[in-house]
Amino acid sequence: MKIDLNSDMGEGFGPYRLCDDEAMMKIVSTANIACGFHGGDPETMARMVRLAKEHGVGIGAHPGLPDRSGFGRREMPFQPDELRQQMLYQLGALIAIARSEGMTVGHFSFHAAMGNMVNRDPALADLMMNAIATVDPHLVVFVTPDSEIEKAAKRAKLKTLALFLADRAYDAGGRLVSRGLPGALVKDEASVRARVRRFLTSGTVEAIDGTTIQMPARSILVHSDTPGSLELARIVRSEIEASGATLAPAAELAS
Amino acid sequence: MKIDLNSDMGEGFGPYRLCDDEAMMKIVSTANIACGFHGGDPETMARMVRLAKEHGVGIGAHPGLPDRSGFGRREMPFQPDELRQQMLYQLGALIAIARSEGMTVGHFSFHAAMGNMVNRDPALADLMMNAIATVDPHLVVFVTPDSEIEKAAKRAKLKTLALFLADRAYDAGGRLVSRGLPGALVKDEASVRARVRRFLTSGTVEAIDGTTIQMPARSILVHSDTPGSLELARIVRSEIEASGATLAPAAELAS
Amino acid sequence: MKIDLNSDMGEGFGPYRLCDDEAMMKIVSTANIACGFHGGDPETMARMVRLAKEHGVGIGAHPGLPDRSGFGRREMPFQPDELRQQMLYQLGALIAIARSEGMTVGHFSFHAAMGNMVNRDPALADLMMNAIATVDPHLVVFVTPDSEIEKAAKRAKLKTLALFLADRAYDAGGRLVSRGLPGALVKDEASVRARVRRFLTSGTVEAIDGTTIQMPARSILVHSDTPGSLELARIVRSEIEASGATLAPAAELAS
Amino acid sequence: MKIDLNSDMGEGFGPYRLCDDEAMMKIVSTANIACGFHGGDPETMARMVRLAKEHGVGIGAHPGLPDRSGFGRREMPFQPDELRQQMLYQLGALIAIARSEGMTVGHFSFHAAMGNMVNRDPALADLMMNAIATVDPHLVVFVTPDSEIEKAAKRAKLKTLALFLADRAYDAGGRLVSRGLPGALVKDEASVRARVRRFLTSGTVEAIDGTTIQMPARSILVHSDTPGSLELARIVRSEIEASGATLAPAAELAS
Repeated sequence: MKIDLNSDMGEGFGPYRLCDDEAMMKIVSTANIACGFHGGDPETMARMVRLAKEHGVGIGAHPGLPDRSGFGRREMPFQPDELRQQMLYQLGALIAIARSEGMTVGHFSFHAAMGNMVNRDPALADLMMNAIATVDPHLVVFVTPDSEIEKAAKRAKLKTLALFLADRAYDAGGRLVSRGLPGALVKDEASVRARVRRFLTSGTVEAIDGTTIQMPARSILVHSDTPGSLELARIVRSEIEASGATLAPAAELAS
Repeated sequence: MKIDLNSDMGEGFGPYRLCDDEAMMKIVSTANIACGFHGGDPETMARMVRLAKEHGVGIGAHPGLPDRSGFGRREMPFQPDELRQQMLYQLGALIAIARSEGMTVGHFSFHAAMGNMVNRDPALADLMMNAIATVDPHLVVFVTPDSEIEKAAKRAKLKTLALFLADRAYDAGGRLVSRGLPGALVKDEASVRARVRRFLTSGTVEAIDGTTIQMPARSILVHSDTPGSLELARIVRSEIEASGATLAPAAELAS
Repeated sequence: MKIDLNSDMGEGFGPYRLCDDEAMMKIVSTANIACGFHGGDPETMARMVRLAKEHGVGIGAHPGLPDRSGFGRREMPFQPDELRQQMLYQLGALIAIARSEGMTVGHFSFHAAMGNMVNRDPALADLMMNAIATVDPHLVVFVTPDSEIEKAAKRAKLKTLALFLADRAYDAGGRLVSRGLPGALVKDEASVRARVRRFLTSGTVEAIDGTTIQMPARSILVHSDTPGSLELARIVRSEIEASGATLAPAAELAS
Repeated sequence: MKIDLNSDMGEGFGPYRLCDDEAMMKIVSTANIACGFHGGDPETMARMVRLAKEHGVGIGAHPGLPDRSGFGRREMPFQPDELRQQMLYQLGALIAIARSEGMTVGHFSFHAAMGNMVNRDPALADLMMNAIATVDPHLVVFVTPDSEIEKAAKRAKLKTLALFLADRAYDAGGRLVSRGLPGALVKDEASVRARVRRFLTSGTVEAIDGTTIQMPARSILVHSDTPGSLELARIVRSEIEASGATLAPAAELAS
């Protein structure tokens, strides 16, 4: 079995770093590159593209709301067309920077609040997915299984890849437990290891209420913006390798 | 004879306007669209693309330094690679927004200080032109005749189109007289009319010292960020039409 | 009778202008100066202070949300303490710039969404008014009659001055009709004249449903960010002068 | 002998941190608080003020150029009056936030390029120091011994406090060796200890060329934006305590 391991990268800018991107790039198979709105800047984007190229890592656009102070986590009252243009702007920016380095942007992954806003609004999801398809119909869209973004991506004839978040709790309906709620973040190493192993062997996850849910994902997302994220990523990678699965960039696994 | 008439457009953002872009778009054959750094924002860019499409106007990227307060007119100590990524970021952003509207970005035109910095540094000009060529080798680069940008564009096998600025004085060497100097701006209608007529009939301009210089341009740039710019653009257009020349988008005229 | 005429000023920045501040400063008795978040910048603020000094106009702080693109009109999910610090930051900035020009900031007037958020939340209104009082207990707070801000300002022992908006419709409860609704903006000159005259002579306004409401205000606010605002301000001023009232800066009229 | 130990604090913002400010605040006697242009934001400023209050640390304004990406280290072509207003804006902002927490801003310390620009231009130094004096004539200005800022501060009748930078090399003329040059940063612990000890016992420093220079400083600045800065600060503090000197906030030591 092939599986992707990805992380959000290049979310610092100027003198600021949220993650040791150089170290993380040696662990993942795919990088979601911040595009200058919630994090990142043109120079950081180019640095990420070069690092990814050096390490054989696939790259994708990770656009967010124009809100550095809130790290793109606060929902803001933008109109649908504003959100569409913000997304296209960031996606196009990364495509040009990547092309100039001889790399291709293979996938698309929303950051935080921008994704949350799109995921609850089917009409907005269609608007966004159709826009992506006009820019590059071969882009793979990262999705939560059964989400509005997944449905809209399929309507737009875009390939998708479902994500499993190893360090976030799910509810019985397969939705992520909101960050603010107790138990939303899975922090201890043993639990993360167990969750990854279970996912790799049975394709299931234990939800926060103890029930078993299906997790039809081919890609594992690890966070990069928290202390210990690098170690967490190494743990997940070692579990993947121990399971006999092979790491592969997201763009190879989508359908 | 075919000639292009172009202007910098979409340099406002949010509640701010520098130009009546709707009116200007009915006069020009080509629009240089600000890309969100010195002016413009994603939504404004999309609005410009739609207006251009509606009026059959060609579009190009008009990137500048990340300096809204100074309107991209202040040179700033960015490193060559930073400038390259800033340029690529803006260019790519417009390409994606345009593609989503079914339009193609046909040319490239530096704004103010970014252009000045590139135009005095052959190595930087090569860096920038080669980067543009990797993104889209068919892009036409707007140039001042005999400038470093023109030379570097040709080395990068990019097509170029030389600009004549109807309302700016030139020195005997064919260079623009710096904005701060007396006589740099040609403001009265009669003088602008006379300059355009002379350019159209003889391909020459009277320099600020009274000498005659050759002006091997196929495109006239009119400013949009000054009071009276709309009227100036109408005057230039009427002179073009009176001369028997035909307006054509820049991308059709480049070589 | 003394009455104040005020307007929001300095809401442009860099190359951008929303209002002919030089002309407006000759009409008003008090200026609400944007403080660099929704509009304005340090240099523009200093320019406004100098203009006000030259024309004997009183000055006040007009802070807004950090949202230039949306002109501070979009509510955004900031925490109470974030809003407090954003407000204090802007207020302090203007105080220092004014002091350096030998001027005193005499009043405080929220811009758009920041004010709307505060006005619906008594606890937030207390937080904000108490913070203002710690910076300068002599500041006069501009209020809508009977609003949460007015009540909180009084609890914080701050003086207040109630505003009448001559070109905005009120509902029968004395609240402004929301900008998006039909009839919210009173645009024709004759209506504005009639409203100002009635207000000056009887202290009442005709609400949007035809009922008469009391308008216990001593200050008239005219907008500066719309076409025709300068002419509107001149009309209001001429009505004030025709009524026999005298213009006076807000800080003199508060209680 | 009393001596001050200070550091630049609160230079992160939103999700970004450059320093463990909570830990650093337990080591220093004075904090130079970033004011939202090169680093910091209103909420971070308030957090720093509260931390300083909790730990009995003196506070001062640390304004810089409006350049987050370049961390205020790049000189930029602002006009003298623009620099003045940028400085006043930031200083006033911190004063208001501090006042609201019951704290007083006691000193002023330029950040990086803004300071460098002022330090080489006596007329600009006068403009800036006179502006500071109008805002608060009791502010203490941090200076390099014999610098233009020191001279201008004295002309403006502001008190000054000279800084010794324990981890930066000086040339024989007492000027800091520029960051880009070899040997500019003193990194090993033993050397820093030796320099601090020598400074405390003899008031001298060994310049980069081996000569001995006088260092008439009463305050030691330790950096906070480099790895190991916290450990460096602890070393300097332990040397101060070992020398028998007593830590005191800068405002108590100025003359």
